[in-house]
Amino acid sequence: MTKPLNIGLIGYGFMGKAHSNAYRRANNFFDLKYHPVLKAICARDAVAAQKFADTWGYESIETEWKKLVARKDIDAVDICVPNNLHHDIAVAAAKAGKMVLCEKPLSMDTKEGLKMVAAVEKAGVPNMVWYNYRRVPAVTMAKQLIDEGKLGRIFHYRAVFLQDWTISSDLPQGGNALWRLDAKAAGSGVTGDLLAHCIDTALWLNGKMTSVTAMTETFIKERKHTLTGKVEKVAIDDACAFLGRFENGSLATFESTRYARGHKALYTFEINGEKASIKWDLHDLHRLQYFDHRDEGRLRGWRSIHVSDHDGSQPYMDHWWVPGLQIGYEHSFVHQVADFLKGLETGKPAEPTFRSALETQKVCDAVLASAKSKQWAKVK
Amino acid sequence: MTKPLNIGLIGYGFMGKAHSNAYRRANNFFDLKYHPVLKAICARDAVAAQKFADTWGYESIETEWKKLVARKDIDAVDICVPNNLHHDIAVAAAKAGKMVLCEKPLSMDTKEGLKMVAAVEKAGVPNMVWYNYRRVPAVTMAKQLIDEGKLGRIFHYRAVFLQDWTISSDLPQGGNALWRLDAKAAGSGVTGDLLAHCIDTALWLNGKMTSVTAMTETFIKERKHTLTGKVEKVAIDDACAFLGRFENGSLATFESTRYARGHKALYTFEINGEKASIKWDLHDLHRLQYFDHRDEGRLRGWRSIHVSDHDGSQPYMDHWWVPGLQIGYEHSFVHQVADFLKGLETGKPAEPTFRSALETQKVCDAVLASAKSKQWAKVK
Amino acid sequence: MTKPLNIGLIGYGFMGKAHSNAYRRANNFFDLKYHPVLKAICARDAVAAQKFADTWGYESIETEWKKLVARKDIDAVDICVPNNLHHDIAVAAAKAGKMVLCEKPLSMDTKEGLKMVAAVEKAGVPNMVWYNYRRVPAVTMAKQLIDEGKLGRIFHYRAVFLQDWTISSDLPQGGNALWRLDAKAAGSGVTGDLLAHCIDTALWLNGKMTSVTAMTETFIKERKHTLTGKVEKVAIDDACAFLGRFENGSLATFESTRYARGHKALYTFEINGEKASIKWDLHDLHRLQYFDHRDEGRLRGWRSIHVSDHDGSQPYMDHWWVPGLQIGYEHSFVHQVADFLKGLETGKPAEPTFRSALETQKVCDAVLASAKSKQWAKVK
Amino acid sequence: MTKPLNIGLIGYGFMGKAHSNAYRRANNFFDLKYHPVLKAICARDAVAAQKFADTWGYESIETEWKKLVARKDIDAVDICVPNNLHHDIAVAAAKAGKMVLCEKPLSMDTKEGLKMVAAVEKAGVPNMVWYNYRRVPAVTMAKQLIDEGKLGRIFHYRAVFLQDWTISSDLPQGGNALWRLDAKAAGSGVTGDLLAHCIDTALWLNGKMTSVTAMTETFIKERKHTLTGKVEKVAIDDACAFLGRFENGSLATFESTRYARGHKALYTFEINGEKASIKWDLHDLHRLQYFDHRDEGRLRGWRSIHVSDHDGSQPYMDHWWVPGLQIGYEHSFVHQVADFLKGLETGKPAEPTFRSALETQKVCDAVLASAKSKQWAKVK
Repeated sequence: MTKPLNIGLIGYGFMGKAHSNAYRRANNFFDLKYHPVLKAICARDAVAAQKFADTWGYESIETEWKKLVARKDIDAVDICVPNNLHHDIAVAAAKAGKMVLCEKPLSMDTKEGLKMVAAVEKAGVPNMVWYNYRRVPAVTMAKQLIDEGKLGRIFHYRAVFLQDWTISSDLPQGGNALWRLDAKAAGSGVTGDLLAHCIDTALWLNGKMTSVTAMTETFIKERKHTLTGKVEKVAIDDACAFLGRFENGSLATFESTRYARGHKALYTFEINGEKASIKWDLHDLHRLQYFDHRDEGRLRGWRSIHVSDHDGSQPYMDHWWVPGLQIGYEHSFVHQVADFLKGLETGKPAEPTFRSALETQKVCDAVLASAKSKQWAKVK
Repeated sequence: MTKPLNIGLIGYGFMGKAHSNAYRRANNFFDLKYHPVLKAICARDAVAAQKFADTWGYESIETEWKKLVARKDIDAVDICVPNNLHHDIAVAAAKAGKMVLCEKPLSMDTKEGLKMVAAVEKAGVPNMVWYNYRRVPAVTMAKQLIDEGKLGRIFHYRAVFLQDWTISSDLPQGGNALWRLDAKAAGSGVTGDLLAHCIDTALWLNGKMTSVTAMTETFIKERKHTLTGKVEKVAIDDACAFLGRFENGSLATFESTRYARGHKALYTFEINGEKASIKWDLHDLHRLQYFDHRDEGRLRGWRSIHVSDHDGSQPYMDHWWVPGLQIGYEHSFVHQVADFLKGLETGKPAEPTFRSALETQKVCDAVLASAKSKQWAKVK
Repeated sequence: MTKPLNIGLIGYGFMGKAHSNAYRRANNFFDLKYHPVLKAICARDAVAAQKFADTWGYESIETEWKKLVARKDIDAVDICVPNNLHHDIAVAAAKAGKMVLCEKPLSMDTKEGLKMVAAVEKAGVPNMVWYNYRRVPAVTMAKQLIDEGKLGRIFHYRAVFLQDWTISSDLPQGGNALWRLDAKAAGSGVTGDLLAHCIDTALWLNGKMTSVTAMTETFIKERKHTLTGKVEKVAIDDACAFLGRFENGSLATFESTRYARGHKALYTFEINGEKASIKWDLHDLHRLQYFDHRDEGRLRGWRSIHVSDHDGSQPYMDHWWVPGLQIGYEHSFVHQVADFLKGLETGKPAEPTFRSALETQKVCDAVLASAKSKQWAKVK
Repeated sequence: MTKPLNIGLIGYGFMGKAHSNAYRRANNFFDLKYHPVLKAICARDAVAAQKFADTWGYESIETEWKKLVARKDIDAVDICVPNNLHHDIAVAAAKAGKMVLCEKPLSMDTKEGLKMVAAVEKAGVPNMVWYNYRRVPAVTMAKQLIDEGKLGRIFHYRAVFLQDWTISSDLPQGGNALWRLDAKAAGSGVTGDLLAHCIDTALWLNGKMTSVTAMTETFIKERKHTLTGKVEKVAIDDACAFLGRFENGSLATFESTRYARGHKALYTFEINGEKASIKWDLHDLHRLQYFDHRDEGRLRGWRSIHVSDHDGSQPYMDHWWVPGLQIGYEHSFVHQVADFLKGLETGKPAEPTFRSALETQKVCDAVLASAKSKQWAKVK
């Protein structure tokens, strides 16, 4: 018999849906000692909360997160609300002895993040941040290859996250789906939203960064604010690019924007090592591009690996269908739930914990500071 | 409140898993009047059946399909067993007044298929065959484009389904996962397994075929049989290719094999029309390749469409995540369940029904007959 | 000092241009004992001939091929005229003791081809047919890999040559650039024009074919004839597809058409062997796709090899630029000239000779016969 | 009758070969009033010079560039020697009243470049720098699309030029083919060699840059010097990345390296505009990727345009073969020669002139200055 883990979810947006789906599916595909129970969903709008509960099978609803956090029957609080609310909820949940699963980025800034780390560590509760792309099988396999030394000394790491959904000046800022354009709710624009993903993957694959020089831009200076109804200054970064250096001596090139016409969610990274190189692309996430200099000279070429084998050699894939049949975006969350539950079972916490995710916050802070000061900034 | 639809599943292999997953997910993503209830799973091996029931949440198990079919609390029987069992179960289920959902191909041959069609139509029960690829959004969109006349007069239809998993002569035939190599269980090799998919899509997109000339080959002539333990003649077709003509005057080129090194499940089709052309590839199923001759001359090129928009313009996709985030193989089954349930709601049956799927059987029969006679064969 | 080889070219169309270019360039890039001298160009239209001579540096012109063939100062006759003229010119040139370089296909049919082979062999003159694609470096490398046994036993060979330039019914047939639509001049349509290329490559890479079953179609039944000014029946094949078997036991699938919207000159082939597979595509001719099953399992993928190394490992490429910089279509002709001249030097004739090219004619004849009889046809 | 233009070439390396080839071919494919005559090749090594002259048909040789420049029978001096020699030769040639065609980058730095511009302008001689990538048809077409306003307001310009040929620490610096690793001969590493190409294209397509922040790295600190025989410090940049801003408000991201394993000469650029985006890749230079937001929503996708039409709609291509048949790297030089000759004919100089090419020098200087100072640098 598997043990129940009672989930209290806060927020019912895109991430609330992705997490709920993952909770419902993990045990169908993974053999685990724990199984999530969808105990309660919390949202300020009771009607919306109830509708979400009906769709996903949550047993109850709450309209105040403090009540949810206070409930005895909740084991884990899952935070899927705008960034400016992460800190308060996470700290309260930790104090209440709940496990905390927090959407990324961890916090509005490093300062907040430090307090959150302190809170969960003091409380001794399992904690995790939803940097889900680590668990796309092709990305996980990249990590394995690097750890095995397949790439040798690393020279370059480059990543972009390109979107085009905010190009229209008619798009308002703030409110529900558009809180990402509102600096008060989001903290930053593409830096915390998109680059945070790129940075998390990079630190995981390639180690710490030491310094950066950055540039940000806000192309549309004013937008109507959904909540106030007035045209207001846009305070987030529409685009952000930075150069940097890793501790291992390799060079970093990062760029993110919501103004790259033709790209919906083009997160790509490439790592160039002495012996081999790797590329990955979220738009075709089931493929890993791999170049191995040790191949016979005339036959060297980038290999397009369809990560869908079923023999256990490719991370996670033996849990799914048959070779050649791809999985999608949502599976990264299923894997993360499975790994989190496995972590409870083994006592080895699933990554990234709050402490690990704080490293990304530090880089984001340095990036934003550099963009402001127009100076190189150290990652502290 | 949604109405329950009690499912009795027979078989717990790859397809049993894919269907169960679809039943569990459809109502999370689609707003439907019916919801499937996983009432019973049937398999000869009680232990395996129970394990499957535990994993997927089936309420009960059966070890004899006749018992399942006889149960009052089952509304729909889902047939996920080898091809040689489809006929008997489907006919019995229809007689018992059950809806019947049958894995593809419908039957061992047209003769059997005709009886199955007669049975479900006589009983007046909803029925459907799991040609799931029709409901990959990119494929469904291809259908829409063709129906709208975007391609104009069609000249060519070509499809391949290439795999490489049976190249090793050490692979045995027969038993569980390997029944597809056993002619007694499968009827044919790649023709019924893989070409049937290609043919179903083709008939749906491009209309009826009239005649074919075919060639089959069995590269490994003998394999150990898992059930008898003896080396036996291999009676299935390892590869099959055929040429043919459609009623609309276009030409057909089809090929399937399990000996195409480097391809796991490369199902591709391409349609060339007077005004536009379309290509699709199962290995990257979330993309549709589209060429439009009406584009400005110098700027004409194949468009790689990432079918992941969220605005309702691309079939099914507004039910999933956000633009740029791909879905996978399994979603085609979720869509098929959703459409089947919608069909119950509206009274307009989800396709393909047994009668529609019989057309594929007729082409398969003509193909196998032609390969044997070395003559062109008419599709009757 | 290199020795001159006096060229007499007949025809000044697309191929006349491609050959002239090749003659002018071979010695700039290859170290050869012979160098071509552009002695004379022959065309019925004296003005056009003179213009061509001025552009390319031919020393003189002729307006009757018989005069050209009779000239003492011509060493080699290069035939770049419509197919129906190949036989008479080639036989006359051979009789006159000239080397003969003939555009493909060798002849209108096997019967003619046999006479041409007899003529050049009786005369003992060097001879060659311009199946230029053999000398695209990626294709030549494919040949090397197969000959080295890298692919192991071959199971499948598939090729297509797809174009879309004759879809408009306004396009006339016959005369100058459009002689390919006129059966009297061309003999056949896509079979002799495009499939002949596919077949030549296939026979070279994979050995002889034994039998075929074919289908042809003429989509536009009547077109205005440029020469007569009248609407006449179109007697060529607009499209042709065939299945077949090779002597080595592998299966063949071939298709060609001028009605595949979106494809300008998409000649692709793929060979599936037990151990490895190869793909090539004329639209990106500098790349070879290669899959090797011996690669580590999780890292297997199709390699996209940019055939542009400069270290001698990839055929011909060390004669060109630097790694990463591609060559184009015309270079295949330069290589063929270089190899022809090298053949004179070494006494080992460059392939394909008339005798070798006759094999393609035999397959074409079988294909057209099968399409007519609707029976399998043997390749004699 | 066309008029002769007597060429005196200095240097016989990779570029000497590329230019000679272009001179020999331009008039075969383009209808021009001038035709180049290969009058003299100059190199310090008389034997090498004679061999080159024999191969390419130069009428004479010189071993001192000053003698070449002084010859009455030379109309144009073409400079294909290391960067540190450009200035002296160009100035002397201009003073001698010769036209000057100079390999890129124009000079060691802006200071030198200014003097070179002054020299050719004072002398009133036609002058040009060989930024050949402007004349790859796909790139030229990109320019046309931008100038026509197809892209609308530009938000982003990103370019990389990635190679991997200097990763081995065994590779020496200096001497012949390796002068690019020697700071004395090359001035800089990838900045002047590779980024200069990227910058030239960018300024041409997207207008002036105003400021940059850059980072350089030398991964292998010491290499044996071919000329001295000693292990010496490597003073060039192995890698260089920079961020910047264009006058039109768009953001720039540039990176170049010779340590990107798997890339031979991967020069790519992408431009994101409000209405459309463009991508190009030197490894497949005959293709242009184009995304148009004005396409029907569900059918939007990146178009892969095979720039090989023959109807005059795509720059330069009607001079070559037939649709679908690609050209290669070297053709960009043929086009540049044709345009230079056309410029003489029309009096409208072919771009980039020395003055235009100086702009790239200014950006390079700012980039190198920023990398050194670790501050943003203005482009002066």
